[in-house]
Amino acid sequence: MNPTELSTALAMLRDAAPLVHNITNQVVANLTANALLAIGASPAMVQAEEEVEEFVVQAAALVVNIGTLLAPQRRAMHLAARHAGQAGIPWVLDPVAAGATAFRRETAQDLLALRPAVLRGNGSEILALAGEDGGGKGVDSGAATGRAVAAARAVARREGVVVAVTGAIDHVTDGTRMVTVGNGHPLLTRVTGTGCTATALIGAFLGAGLPPLTAAVAGLATLGVAAEQAAGAAAGPASFQVALLDRLHGLDGATLAARARLG
Amino acid sequence: MNPTELSTALAMLRDAAPLVHNITNQVVANLTANALLAIGASPAMVQAEEEVEEFVVQAAALVVNIGTLLAPQRRAMHLAARHAGQAGIPWVLDPVAAGATAFRRETAQDLLALRPAVLRGNGSEILALAGEDGGGKGVDSGAATGRAVAAARAVARREGVVVAVTGAIDHVTDGTRMVTVGNGHPLLTRVTGTGCTATALIGAFLGAGLPPLTAAVAGLATLGVAAEQAAGAAAGPASFQVALLDRLHGLDGATLAARARLG
Amino acid sequence: MNPTELSTALAMLRDAAPLVHNITNQVVANLTANALLAIGASPAMVQAEEEVEEFVVQAAALVVNIGTLLAPQRRAMHLAARHAGQAGIPWVLDPVAAGATAFRRETAQDLLALRPAVLRGNGSEILALAGEDGGGKGVDSGAATGRAVAAARAVARREGVVVAVTGAIDHVTDGTRMVTVGNGHPLLTRVTGTGCTATALIGAFLGAGLPPLTAAVAGLATLGVAAEQAAGAAAGPASFQVALLDRLHGLDGATLAARARLG
Repeated sequence: MNPTELSTALAMLRDAAPLVHNITNQVVANLTANALLAIGASPAMVQAEEEVEEFVVQAAALVVNIGTLLAPQRRAMHLAARHAGQAGIPWVLDPVAAGATAFRRETAQDLLALRPAVLRGNGSEILALAGEDGGGKGVDSGAATGRAVAAARAVARREGVVVAVTGAIDHVTDGTRMVTVGNGHPLLTRVTGTGCTATALIGAFLGAGLPPLTAAVAGLATLGVAAEQAAGAAAGPASFQVALLDRLHGLDGATLAARARLG
Repeated sequence: MNPTELSTALAMLRDAAPLVHNITNQVVANLTANALLAIGASPAMVQAEEEVEEFVVQAAALVVNIGTLLAPQRRAMHLAARHAGQAGIPWVLDPVAAGATAFRRETAQDLLALRPAVLRGNGSEILALAGEDGGGKGVDSGAATGRAVAAARAVARREGVVVAVTGAIDHVTDGTRMVTVGNGHPLLTRVTGTGCTATALIGAFLGAGLPPLTAAVAGLATLGVAAEQAAGAAAGPASFQVALLDRLHGLDGATLAARARLG
Repeated sequence: MNPTELSTALAMLRDAAPLVHNITNQVVANLTANALLAIGASPAMVQAEEEVEEFVVQAAALVVNIGTLLAPQRRAMHLAARHAGQAGIPWVLDPVAAGATAFRRETAQDLLALRPAVLRGNGSEILALAGEDGGGKGVDSGAATGRAVAAARAVARREGVVVAVTGAIDHVTDGTRMVTVGNGHPLLTRVTGTGCTATALIGAFLGAGLPPLTAAVAGLATLGVAAEQAAGAAAGPASFQVALLDRLHGLDGATLAARARLG
């Protein structure tokens, strides 16, 4: 992918200021809303079963994140995702800790069957959705990355979705093409919800009308470049998070295109 | 209103350190609690149907915010608001996105019928509660402000409550009098929950024993002046939010009275 | 307790990077997760009745906090705590506002009967769990502290748990021994969730395999020393909170041992 596509994508996002409907977890709801505002989108957190179908059709994109899943929220996610699909509204799924419990595994599989435009997870989560063991501590991480990337490709083909598996290097695939994003910073792993932020940014790019593969790469590159800029000024993880949001807000397309490391 | 009333109000708030009971949304719960602590109040977030009636009578004021409404929380809000009214405890209603779905419209109308001391919303929300179309994109914003101010006056008269409609200029009315607050900063629109923060600050002033119109103006002026001070030091929306809370904490009555732009 | 035990404890925590399962309140969920990441633990927020038993046995420790309690969450807390006890996984209880309502009092008593390794609360909360009146405003705070410390010792003996009662000086007791921690800063009282953060840090030290009394003292001393360091650079409560997390991340064992004021 040509990095200039990223600056075009960012300009489209800021021009559209898309309304992004989030059904997400209570740990990251504030950070997600602020990240969406910072990049130029318009976030809404609406999660009641009674209203998600009526609301989602007003949105440009939907973000579904199972982080602090509860049964009523699970029903709301299903209703919203199904309705989004019927209405042609793109959505992105974040299957947080999908392999940790049966409740999460079943919920993530149920949602994946509703065909999000993009599925974004870490290696363990994508392996779980591919039906493989996510691996515990002690697994060689190089081998784990290779397995997760293969799993991402398999899930992308099987489900007909774009899969983004994030880590030190992010991999995005539609089952055929594979794009890597080499941006980011280790401090991203010391702040909660940065993976969820990546998912929400992908949702914002989907809401701006970008195709799923481009939206996923743009979301990951945007976060990664902003993180690199933020790390320079940070005294630790909390000042890093503040700077990260400030940098998302201040990021311009030329800088994004110049600093993105796509492969 | 004389700006010196604002410094008196702030002194009363800090002297009383009122316990403010919040039933609010998960996006802003942390920010709301920190804003209340910063200004000198004592926040509590208590939302179970089983306990809100027992708790609210211990509080000096109640804040009800429907941002991430769920059905059990809706019942708790109704119980708490009704009980507060019976006990003479003032409360403030924030009808987040009241016009977006039937669930929100009905909840907001149901709560408004319980007569909060103050109703605070943006133009679209106040228009929805007045029974008018909130208007979508493309509506001329000058005309929209005029319509929202007229709707605020109509709702204030019809319901016997003070209505605050916030925007670039805030308007506060009891149906007869109209006070404007001209403070604030555009960065307030790039941080989630600043409207909810305004509502909570109004709750704190109500809890300090101020009459509703004064409490509403004081809450909005306090936030607006602190925002103007915070914007100078901010590198973006997240450092602005940090500075905003620091400034709320450090704000003194003389500065508030000198910088408030009331009309 | 010898302060060098604290540096050993911190080294053990960072070496273990324990998975800490939290069932906590929506006000502090983000801060709790970030504090756990900052100190070197691995947080997870999992709260559905359907999955807490399956999840908790994968964790090294459990943190239960009743701050924004709801009935389904109460059932999940009970299931998780009981299962943790059966599996030998240590857990810590934070009985937020235990004395404020019958719902909280009963929930806290029910959980306490499941025997956490550590109970951490402020004076009012510990008095409520001892069956005494927590005292309202106007109670002499010196006398209140003395009563709370006596109540802590009584609860520790009666329930067979370590009790930490926090305030200007923290007191930690197993019913026989009593250790005081004299670190901290007044700004801790102007940020929401710092008590909850203390509880979570105790959970992290429990997860690293430390005995309950040591874990409680280590958690409180760690937070107190980081707070003292953070206060120097803070312009108010919000920049203090950012600096607090940065300092938790940067804290080294030698500094912790040198600055801890144990008695």
